[in-house]
Amino acid sequence: MEYLLFAIFLAACFAAGSTGGLFPPGAWYRALSKPRWTPPDWAFPVTWTVLYLCMATAGTRAAVADDNAIAMALWSLQIALNGLWTPVFFGLKRIKLGFVVLAALWLSVAVTMLALWQVDSMAGALFAPYLLWVTIAGALNGAVWRLNPEAAAAKGDTPTA
Amino acid sequence: MEYLLFAIFLAACFAAGSTGGLFPPGAWYRALSKPRWTPPDWAFPVTWTVLYLCMATAGTRAAVADDNAIAMALWSLQIALNGLWTPVFFGLKRIKLGFVVLAALWLSVAVTMLALWQVDSMAGALFAPYLLWVTIAGALNGAVWRLNPEAAAAKGDTPTA
Repeated sequence: MEYLLFAIFLAACFAAGSTGGLFPPGAWYRALSKPRWTPPDWAFPVTWTVLYLCMATAGTRAAVADDNAIAMALWSLQIALNGLWTPVFFGLKRIKLGFVVLAALWLSVAVTMLALWQVDSMAGALFAPYLLWVTIAGALNGAVWRLNPEAAAAKGDTPTA
Repeated sequence: MEYLLFAIFLAACFAAGSTGGLFPPGAWYRALSKPRWTPPDWAFPVTWTVLYLCMATAGTRAAVADDNAIAMALWSLQIALNGLWTPVFFGLKRIKLGFVVLAALWLSVAVTMLALWQVDSMAGALFAPYLLWVTIAGALNGAVWRLNPEAAAAKGDTPTA
């Protein structure tokens, strides 16, 4: 059963991550001023693949443990938030709203890590790299906001028009 | 604890549902030919709000039951897929890919309903209206595809450019 569980959690991760392929960084992002420490584009899918394997492993370990109800609910919450950032940032080009989404994701990942830790310390530890990466992503989004005040003030795309 | 669980599952639902507010139907959608039975725009957020309450209740009931690992993993998978359709359809204006996303969502909701049913029959029953609505949404997406072959063949928006 653990392989099946792992496959389902991994599918949930890649469903959220598919937004990265659907809304890739384009000319708009390349033209923005970015801090010197910005990771190269290729680092994002590579890092996310490793993180998704960790997240699915953590979900699997917690799912078969006792007293896991809160941890399982939080795992669902963080994956629902995980897929939001890319459509908001690269799709709508809304830099400030992207930062708000990342702040919500960061909070949900931190609380999920604590809840997982209570259920299974290894599951909690497997969320630590994820929290670190979302921290870096949040710092990058914040720096892009600061370095590009005009782009951040623009409403971005209005795909409804 | 059940109120906290319910609040977390409901937050996950509204995180996925927030894409409906971020990528609302606009002039492009209004201009498409639609079948006569297309629900009015206002029906979508109203229906989704009711469905989210049902889905969060089902998640809460299953989370506190025994032998719920597969059901909890599947609940995560369906919510990760739930937030994908709106950015693909209204954001990217990709009608065919939207249909593919709905097909994947339909399958995940059906399997989740069966897994929930095994854990708690009421939890499974609470997913039935959700499956019905995704069936209607899939039929609508399919009809829009059939009625608008040129819009469906177009690549849609390329927000990367």
